[in-house]
Amino acid sequence: MNDSLRFIAPALGAFGLFCAFLIYRRIRALPSGTGEIEDIAEQIHNGAMVFMKREFKLLAMFGSVVIVVLWFKDPYESLAFTLGALSSAVAGFIGMYTATKANSRTTVAAYEKGPQEALRTAFFGGTIMGLTVASMGLLGVGGLFVFFGNTAGDIHIIHGFAMGASLVAIFFRVGGGIFTKAADVGADLVGKVESGIPEDDPRNPGVIADNVGDNVGDVAGMGSDLFESYCNAQIATMAIAATMTASSWQAIAISPASLMFLPLGLASVGLLCSLSGMLVVRLFAHKEPARALRMGTLSASILFIAAAYLVMLFLGVSNSVWLCVLCGSAGGVIIGLATEYYTGGRPMREIAKSSQTGVATVMISGLAAGLQSVVIPLLTIAGILLLTSELAGLYGVGIAAVGMLATIGITMSIDAYGPVADNAGGIAEMAGLGKKTRDITDSLDEVGNTTAAIGKGFAIGAAALAGLAIIAAYVNVVRSHHDDFMLQLSDPAVLTGVFIGGLLPFLVSSITMNAVGLAAGEMIEEIRRQFREIPGLLDGNAKPDSARCVDIATEAALKRMFLPAAIAVLSPVVVGFGFGPSTLGGMLVGALLGCVLLALMMANSGGAWDNAKKFIEKGNYGGKNSDAHHACVVGDTVGDPLKDTSGPSMNILINVMAIVSLVIAPLL
Amino acid sequence: MNDSLRFIAPALGAFGLFCAFLIYRRIRALPSGTGEIEDIAEQIHNGAMVFMKREFKLLAMFGSVVIVVLWFKDPYESLAFTLGALSSAVAGFIGMYTATKANSRTTVAAYEKGPQEALRTAFFGGTIMGLTVASMGLLGVGGLFVFFGNTAGDIHIIHGFAMGASLVAIFFRVGGGIFTKAADVGADLVGKVESGIPEDDPRNPGVIADNVGDNVGDVAGMGSDLFESYCNAQIATMAIAATMTASSWQAIAISPASLMFLPLGLASVGLLCSLSGMLVVRLFAHKEPARALRMGTLSASILFIAAAYLVMLFLGVSNSVWLCVLCGSAGGVIIGLATEYYTGGRPMREIAKSSQTGVATVMISGLAAGLQSVVIPLLTIAGILLLTSELAGLYGVGIAAVGMLATIGITMSIDAYGPVADNAGGIAEMAGLGKKTRDITDSLDEVGNTTAAIGKGFAIGAAALAGLAIIAAYVNVVRSHHDDFMLQLSDPAVLTGVFIGGLLPFLVSSITMNAVGLAAGEMIEEIRRQFREIPGLLDGNAKPDSARCVDIATEAALKRMFLPAAIAVLSPVVVGFGFGPSTLGGMLVGALLGCVLLALMMANSGGAWDNAKKFIEKGNYGGKNSDAHHACVVGDTVGDPLKDTSGPSMNILINVMAIVSLVIAPLL
Repeated sequence: MNDSLRFIAPALGAFGLFCAFLIYRRIRALPSGTGEIEDIAEQIHNGAMVFMKREFKLLAMFGSVVIVVLWFKDPYESLAFTLGALSSAVAGFIGMYTATKANSRTTVAAYEKGPQEALRTAFFGGTIMGLTVASMGLLGVGGLFVFFGNTAGDIHIIHGFAMGASLVAIFFRVGGGIFTKAADVGADLVGKVESGIPEDDPRNPGVIADNVGDNVGDVAGMGSDLFESYCNAQIATMAIAATMTASSWQAIAISPASLMFLPLGLASVGLLCSLSGMLVVRLFAHKEPARALRMGTLSASILFIAAAYLVMLFLGVSNSVWLCVLCGSAGGVIIGLATEYYTGGRPMREIAKSSQTGVATVMISGLAAGLQSVVIPLLTIAGILLLTSELAGLYGVGIAAVGMLATIGITMSIDAYGPVADNAGGIAEMAGLGKKTRDITDSLDEVGNTTAAIGKGFAIGAAALAGLAIIAAYVNVVRSHHDDFMLQLSDPAVLTGVFIGGLLPFLVSSITMNAVGLAAGEMIEEIRRQFREIPGLLDGNAKPDSARCVDIATEAALKRMFLPAAIAVLSPVVVGFGFGPSTLGGMLVGALLGCVLLALMMANSGGAWDNAKKFIEKGNYGGKNSDAHHACVVGDTVGDPLKDTSGPSMNILINVMAIVSLVIAPLL
Repeated sequence: MNDSLRFIAPALGAFGLFCAFLIYRRIRALPSGTGEIEDIAEQIHNGAMVFMKREFKLLAMFGSVVIVVLWFKDPYESLAFTLGALSSAVAGFIGMYTATKANSRTTVAAYEKGPQEALRTAFFGGTIMGLTVASMGLLGVGGLFVFFGNTAGDIHIIHGFAMGASLVAIFFRVGGGIFTKAADVGADLVGKVESGIPEDDPRNPGVIADNVGDNVGDVAGMGSDLFESYCNAQIATMAIAATMTASSWQAIAISPASLMFLPLGLASVGLLCSLSGMLVVRLFAHKEPARALRMGTLSASILFIAAAYLVMLFLGVSNSVWLCVLCGSAGGVIIGLATEYYTGGRPMREIAKSSQTGVATVMISGLAAGLQSVVIPLLTIAGILLLTSELAGLYGVGIAAVGMLATIGITMSIDAYGPVADNAGGIAEMAGLGKKTRDITDSLDEVGNTTAAIGKGFAIGAAALAGLAIIAAYVNVVRSHHDDFMLQLSDPAVLTGVFIGGLLPFLVSSITMNAVGLAAGEMIEEIRRQFREIPGLLDGNAKPDSARCVDIATEAALKRMFLPAAIAVLSPVVVGFGFGPSTLGGMLVGALLGCVLLALMMANSGGAWDNAKKFIEKGNYGGKNSDAHHACVVGDTVGDPLKDTSGPSMNILINVMAIVSLVIAPLL
């Protein structure tokens, strides 16, 4: 392998950031509206920035401790950790900054120019996040690889980067998840239910916080989630390559260096394919939105699979490794489709039907749908695991994860598009731009909801595979220090770990679920207070104190994100040093299983309840305000923290635990 | 070890059955009431028998296939299977037969003699089931041990017995669970909600079916569940002993024969301790019911721990094995207390409090409580596993399970007492015996609810340990055929199994949950039809066709219990022969983890909702018919299938899968 190849990844990363900057300039140049629109957009933007700043402060404190501790293990690894944390934080910041700029511009585009231009604005607002995530990953991982990718002994330094990314992710995901649902539930319960004013009404003091929440949770939270899966998958695969025996690597490549570089190579061409996909969306923007987005993702994926073949040919890697990429991509599609089926197909309609017999049956059928929805994704993951390990050992599993995530540039763009479109609708409503504009933003938003559901399934699948790869790397690293290391399931120490690992996702879910309830309670009190104490607010003669609501949601979220993050970081340390590497290995597997199962169940139950409500709102079973509708509204409210707070936290919980274990592995 | 010792277990089994017969004669001689009481009791009794007969038919069909297939493996094992299935079925039949005789006699005792006599009648009605379960186990396992316990090579024949017991258990548990909740939900929804008549009103055609369901689900279902855990724990421990290496057994006993016999020895003295405990309850029956029952269980446990010490001294087994018994007993108590806390302590009161903000918050806080409730039990199981395996290897884990279950005679009695007391209350209401009688039966029932919740936690813990022991035996058996057999977690084949195993509990839960919904729907239609078509029914001038409702619930339950049973039996066969013993081993561990987690979560969420409703009915947060109460009623309805159908099925699912794997292990 030519040594100058190493520079490709960081160079492409820089190029990707440049593209993101160009897009940002174009978005920035679009009319952002005046008067009311500008004012509302400004409030959302400022709210998001307030949250970000305070979150960064907390992160800095928590992170400093880790930096110091890591310094004693290896100063370089500590620096890599800092870099990883900064990269993730910067990517989140840029994504959110631009998303809160794109929202009002989408509103204006819908109002002044119509659906095509609105779609383009919303989508390209999202692409900045997509490109930033992919590019920061390439820049960071690729940059470290230039320095530390030469020798297998140095590769562990890059693990620090993964750990930094994971730590930021758990803060963003959990904090953002609590913020967004506390604001959502609070604003809805007092506004819609108690005071009888419509959704997104400007008189409601919680509405701005609700819109901030979309950005905080769905843009920054989802972005940091995918960023860490993306980086971790690459880093874990490198780690596996670094600890492979000669006979293993000889079976699939001409040199171990090729195998080390391959994840970066795939991610690099993945970025180019994502850019092409974005072009396709732009070209198809005059078609219906759903189709344009689907064409974009699809063409990026197909292009990537073809390009991956060439990359392997060029690097002298066996075809069987390319088949692993194929498995990863196909698996991602299957899990996405399964998610779509459970949240939008027959199970969702069964829930809607069961609403005729009341809330209890809505709850039972929703839980049953969620429980059942784990079957196909788990079988898919098991199938990928079996096939890829047959094709290329545990390295193949890592490559499947890398393949699934390589086109993150476009998948993340589409995920970020959702909240931009949602915000645009909110701004249109608050500014009173009329039904025509609202219809356009609604249609964009609807597409966003479907893509969000699929994106969630995809994120879970990717996190599971990345987690698997890190666990495999962990086992290899421990074994490289203890020749006789075995992770036998019949060993009581391992089984003990499996049980401990299994309970952690349940514990963290219950903590985050209760956190939303408590935070929402604080929001409710504040909104009630404002309605009571600000004269003329309900008549529209006074402005609500929206900033105070943002403040309360921020405070509540930050206070309650600490415990889950601490559990994720500390449990591997305690178990690893307290009980040894076997128990820790068992714990990772138990936690992986528990996290994937709960993540799927919660995401799909929640998604199905949400869509069942929307299905009824379209006029089925009595339509809006019928008894059936009321029953489904309860389902939707219950599903909110499940699908947007507790469920998504699971992805990161397992990855944080796995990466911390990988980092401490040499010390055990 | 003296060879004549072997005869002790079956002899004690026969003695226990004789005691049960004596108690039955005394119960039978009590006044059973006349007129209305007799008539209602007769209807419940006949309904239960109708269900039993039809369930036996289905079982016979399914069982015959297994008998034939097993015959080809080993005719003796096939016979043992038949014996195990028959023992479990007979125990269930006797228990239910007598429970449906004791219920009306409890009502009469409450009416004519007061609370003391009522408690005695209900409790001793339950002891027949308790004694029968323990005695049939000793008779069956002990009898087979006389013939096949001599040589390690023959011990596998006894596995057939365990498989028979497990197969019956899954039919009884799932079928009974669907029946009881379909009847309960159906009767409540049409009676209480639609027609506004009180619970247990004789005009409601579903009330008899509801009372039948208590016996079918809580007596026969719970009995077969504990019977199989009881037998499986002993059999698995024998299997571990049979495959121990010389150095392993030498560390803890003077001969391997002692270790083989020890489980039976412990179960034998356990029966005697249970009998003593029953005497204690009888002596304390003039105190408050809860205290009498607690004194009985406690004294039986303490006596057993002391007796176990003597047994080991006598058999020449090390003290460290006795400590394993101590771990098992202590673990059972801890899990029981944790269950009591989550279903009756602060988390339950938090749910009640959250009912002030509506159904959605009741649902969220209930789910959060259930999720969190897994933590202590899982840590306890992990702790038992770690300690006992340190003390005596995997044999220690098996002995902990045996120790936890040895006093099943009294724990099962108390479990069976609950539905008898519940039925007695139903009969009192239907026969219109007035408030005084109802108050007595209500107080007995309340105690029954607490014991039922603790019993559920205990059953889960016991099933988990028994499952662990069987899995350990499975690994040993496979290893005795393939020297190089390893169950390495880093082996993709094993990990694939873990994923497949993890999804099965979720799949089976969703199937059983939906089954309750569908079956309840059929009940609702029939009850509505009767109210509509039978003239004068609602005015009390005509009798409902209760038998028809029993019939419908029976039909619905039998139809839908087949699929879960088939999944439990066939999945190990398919995975074992299709993917090999490593994947099957991984699957068992994944399924064990998933089953224990879901079982705990569902039992405790359901129990907490149930008790939160009762807490409000006592006058808190507005009391009966307040908005808070309505919200909690929904929680209770959602919790019903979770805690009484899907949750309990988990215990058996894992044990069936494990025992089938153990039986097919030599063929893999």
